[in-house]
Amino acid sequence: MTRTADEVVLALDAGGSRIRAAVLGPDASVLHRASAATGAERGPDAVVEALLELAAGLAAQYRPVAAGIAVPGIIDQAAGICTFAANLGWREVPIRQWAAEELGIPVVLGHDVRAAALAEARLGAGRGCRSFLYVRMGTGIAAALVLDGRILVGGHGSAGELGHLTVRPRGRLCACGKRGCLETVASDPALAGAYSRATGEEVGAEEMWRRAQAGDDVAEWLWDRTVPALADGLAAAVTLFDPRRLVIGGGPAQVGRSCFEPLRAALEKRLAFQTTPEILPAGLGADAGCVGAGLLVLDQRPTPARLGAPPRPRPAARL
Amino acid sequence: MTRTADEVVLALDAGGSRIRAAVLGPDASVLHRASAATGAERGPDAVVEALLELAAGLAAQYRPVAAGIAVPGIIDQAAGICTFAANLGWREVPIRQWAAEELGIPVVLGHDVRAAALAEARLGAGRGCRSFLYVRMGTGIAAALVLDGRILVGGHGSAGELGHLTVRPRGRLCACGKRGCLETVASDPALAGAYSRATGEEVGAEEMWRRAQAGDDVAEWLWDRTVPALADGLAAAVTLFDPRRLVIGGGPAQVGRSCFEPLRAALEKRLAFQTTPEILPAGLGADAGCVGAGLLVLDQRPTPARLGAPPRPRPAARL
Repeated sequence: MTRTADEVVLALDAGGSRIRAAVLGPDASVLHRASAATGAERGPDAVVEALLELAAGLAAQYRPVAAGIAVPGIIDQAAGICTFAANLGWREVPIRQWAAEELGIPVVLGHDVRAAALAEARLGAGRGCRSFLYVRMGTGIAAALVLDGRILVGGHGSAGELGHLTVRPRGRLCACGKRGCLETVASDPALAGAYSRATGEEVGAEEMWRRAQAGDDVAEWLWDRTVPALADGLAAAVTLFDPRRLVIGGGPAQVGRSCFEPLRAALEKRLAFQTTPEILPAGLGADAGCVGAGLLVLDQRPTPARLGAPPRPRPAARL
Repeated sequence: MTRTADEVVLALDAGGSRIRAAVLGPDASVLHRASAATGAERGPDAVVEALLELAAGLAAQYRPVAAGIAVPGIIDQAAGICTFAANLGWREVPIRQWAAEELGIPVVLGHDVRAAALAEARLGAGRGCRSFLYVRMGTGIAAALVLDGRILVGGHGSAGELGHLTVRPRGRLCACGKRGCLETVASDPALAGAYSRATGEEVGAEEMWRRAQAGDDVAEWLWDRTVPALADGLAAAVTLFDPRRLVIGGGPAQVGRSCFEPLRAALEKRLAFQTTPEILPAGLGADAGCVGAGLLVLDQRPTPARLGAPPRPRPAARL
């Protein structure tokens, strides 16, 4: 089968609160975007239904040749199964098979943060950097170490769980069951909750970040309070991974420089002989997960997309 | 040039307090061992002299065809330079060139903990494990992540600095300039110091570990006190690296099972969804660094040693 100019792929990124979808061209350009609520509050099946419905609607309209799905949590990529995703309520969900049956096209399963990291490596803020740590801050906080375009998966598929470093041992209880994880301080729900408590106004994370962008005083004070905990977690990651660059996606990336300057200073203060990596906002914004899921598909297509080098073993890679 | 049955290589491992040397056969078997004090208290030049003298003496006797030198700290492996090694007092020491001039044979420079990890991967407690974290506890504490026989180096050559994770923010000042690093609690000097204060007897680390092996009560109490801090550091490493196995070298490995059971329990208590890796004592003891330095040399020899697979890129390696 050869690819025609019309061939497109479908990409989905199932986040903690929304499922984002995109139709991508052979060069991974985004031709169309859509999204839907996960409906996670109605249980794991509702999420599956929401995802398949969104996918089927786009498939009927755009006739993609294949699809990529990125999900959070712990996945068995080879088997196409989501083993565990707390935010979706999923356990042992064979989502690749279900989606392939629903759509009638080949489907590739990927991990949301690792897919986003892949997209940043090839098309975003990781370009030209052989060793960077991508950090995604949202409903959860997770990281992916990218080395020469390849991504650290870990022995059980759970490498990079930055959000579950203990940064405040006597802090709040985390959804994972432990106390004081970075997510209890710096995740979107933690920040929005603190913002709501401070203002007496019930505000979601999206609205809070919008206000932060507009220079809201409470948001600024809240960020100043969050930076030390985030820097504690990042200092541990830098000490163990030694990346050349930190690429940060999520709310802080939208707000930009004013978020990153205090973070850089706090990180530097915590490091001794370690080289403080440069800190950059992610380049692809909310598209990163979808573009990454699309790249996973395009890399497997008969005519590889011309998107820089797909992952290839290198004889002299400095792991 | 073809290798004859007689060809041997020289390997040196410059530790914080002693330089260990070994003469290795083509299969990396240890034919002869020697060691000398670093003399680090007399300054960086004294360490260089001690190392070259030890090497020259063995070279004169055994006529090695090449040498490998493993040093701690931050090294530029390609350039053969030790950029910074706090425990040796070295800064920008071109030790590979100096040793090659002194010995008249090719010399390879490596990092001590990464060399030891390589040795454990091929010949020790890492055999058969695609993803493990080697932890060396001694004058310093450092780790190396081994993936399919390849070792994480980091963007600036300082990945795996486990000993400089902050585990006791209000703890003692570390040699690195920060407070409460794991090394201030669990390194050999920290443990020996605490042992001496508890017993009123001036005891070095070697003697303390010997007594611990013999079931000494104070040593046991001290280990119980150390385990929580060590588990804090290892929990962070497991959360970020997700290794299948922890291989621990140094004093605790000599003492064995009685050290590892409380550590395993403490680590498990700190982890939620993360899989607790199995914990094994290192298999090569104090030889690991030398054997690893030797492997670096043997891998570059014209006829590769038959020691399991030398590092090779794999198309489908799960980074």
